[in-house]
Amino acid sequence: MVFRVDRRVRFADVDAAGIVFYPRYFEMINACVEDWFETGLEHGFNAMIVKGNHAVPLANIEVDFKAPSRLDDELAFKLVVTEVGRSSFKLTIKAWHEDEVRMIAKLVLVYIDMDKHVPVRIPEIMRARMLTFEEVK
Amino acid sequence: MVFRVDRRVRFADVDAAGIVFYPRYFEMINACVEDWFETGLEHGFNAMIVKGNHAVPLANIEVDFKAPSRLDDELAFKLVVTEVGRSSFKLTIKAWHEDEVRMIAKLVLVYIDMDKHVPVRIPEIMRARMLTFEEVK
Amino acid sequence: MVFRVDRRVRFADVDAAGIVFYPRYFEMINACVEDWFETGLEHGFNAMIVKGNHAVPLANIEVDFKAPSRLDDELAFKLVVTEVGRSSFKLTIKAWHEDEVRMIAKLVLVYIDMDKHVPVRIPEIMRARMLTFEEVK
Amino acid sequence: MVFRVDRRVRFADVDAAGIVFYPRYFEMINACVEDWFETGLEHGFNAMIVKGNHAVPLANIEVDFKAPSRLDDELAFKLVVTEVGRSSFKLTIKAWHEDEVRMIAKLVLVYIDMDKHVPVRIPEIMRARMLTFEEVK
Repeated sequence: MVFRVDRRVRFADVDAAGIVFYPRYFEMINACVEDWFETGLEHGFNAMIVKGNHAVPLANIEVDFKAPSRLDDELAFKLVVTEVGRSSFKLTIKAWHEDEVRMIAKLVLVYIDMDKHVPVRIPEIMRARMLTFEEVK
Repeated sequence: MVFRVDRRVRFADVDAAGIVFYPRYFEMINACVEDWFETGLEHGFNAMIVKGNHAVPLANIEVDFKAPSRLDDELAFKLVVTEVGRSSFKLTIKAWHEDEVRMIAKLVLVYIDMDKHVPVRIPEIMRARMLTFEEVK
Repeated sequence: MVFRVDRRVRFADVDAAGIVFYPRYFEMINACVEDWFETGLEHGFNAMIVKGNHAVPLANIEVDFKAPSRLDDELAFKLVVTEVGRSSFKLTIKAWHEDEVRMIAKLVLVYIDMDKHVPVRIPEIMRARMLTFEEVK
Repeated sequence: MVFRVDRRVRFADVDAAGIVFYPRYFEMINACVEDWFETGLEHGFNAMIVKGNHAVPLANIEVDFKAPSRLDDELAFKLVVTEVGRSSFKLTIKAWHEDEVRMIAKLVLVYIDMDKHVPVRIPEIMRARMLTFEEVK
């Protein structure tokens, strides 16, 4: 399965050159992961962080910016899981505008205990749900 | 030479978990590059973009988050040049808190013509200035 | 008519105290006005600014924060027009969570020519469309 | 006494029209208040919120935008206290560029207990320090 979020480029996203200011892409990426937890994995950040005392901080991210995006461009963010380890997992998120890839992001996130700020084993139910979004090779 | 910018973690930078919200790191990285152009290369974004019709969009970035940063932490962003090509150049920016590395970012930026949005040769004077910040191997 | 935009409070919106960081409210307010131009007035910012060379900068805003909003709260932003003058117009935007008002914003915006940065008469068609959102007294 | 913070308009602050995107002004205003607590009142947000369990949420703000600010403009934010009540206090912050006022903000903030989220009496030492920044009539 691929998890998809649509997002139009807004006035707040573009810089003086009229193209998306790249730190805004990271807010979009973060929002995509947040939405995936909420509706894809059915375990939103509020439940996870406030009630479950877990968090999934970003350990590593690599982003390729393929082509600029402009005001009003409709972007489709498509997320797939590429690996689920003991306490970390890997995602690839591509932002498409029609049939052009604008950005490819590869993320490594870690499941942690909020109080001790140490990695913990990903709960089995979460692992199982994550695997339903695994990329078909 | 190493280019350095100091930046305290502000209230606006931290999330509900009390640590820096990672999209804010990219604003800090962008600000570090902006300051480097302004005071390190003596050719600020305003001169470059508004008057010179050039821009330096990010083509690729990879970031390792080594340890979380909290409200009031003093961060030192240290920038070095790792490569200067025909129209692209590579930077490494590390954010230090005292003697702990919090974040390592590797960036590839491209010198472009703003109107045509195509890569152009890096002006010789800029290349020479960039090389003064090259990392000593 | 009332123009309405729904917006859930996201992780990026809340601060270390777990409530909406107020500068984020102004992004939401701006996005509400942007959406109103796009779908309510059928004359989006892209058409207006990039093609029409007009803009509607904010001249004055007053905001009352009635109650804090937290992660995952569903907010309904409701916009009405309270006055349409020669070159300026007034809006009231209220953010509701269920039957509680969280925030009341009163805005004065000015229709300007982008090049000269001076007020211009609001085009008749825009005035007519704005008036369809006028608050019933 | 007047509390002053200098802030140059950065690339991240300006919109597609080349002027400061107004939600960014509210980050600057918030940062000015944060700096005032830190260095003016000698009781920073970290000490107040994390250790003292107090916060100073914004209850009301009114902002007049007098003239647009552009990339690289040097802004001086000047803060004065206009009233200190039992649990609330009022500030005026003006942003100057050279001898032109760009923005005037009037804020009402409330001293609250973080757990109960109710107003509390402003501690005497804080009241006394605030009054040293009172505007001379």
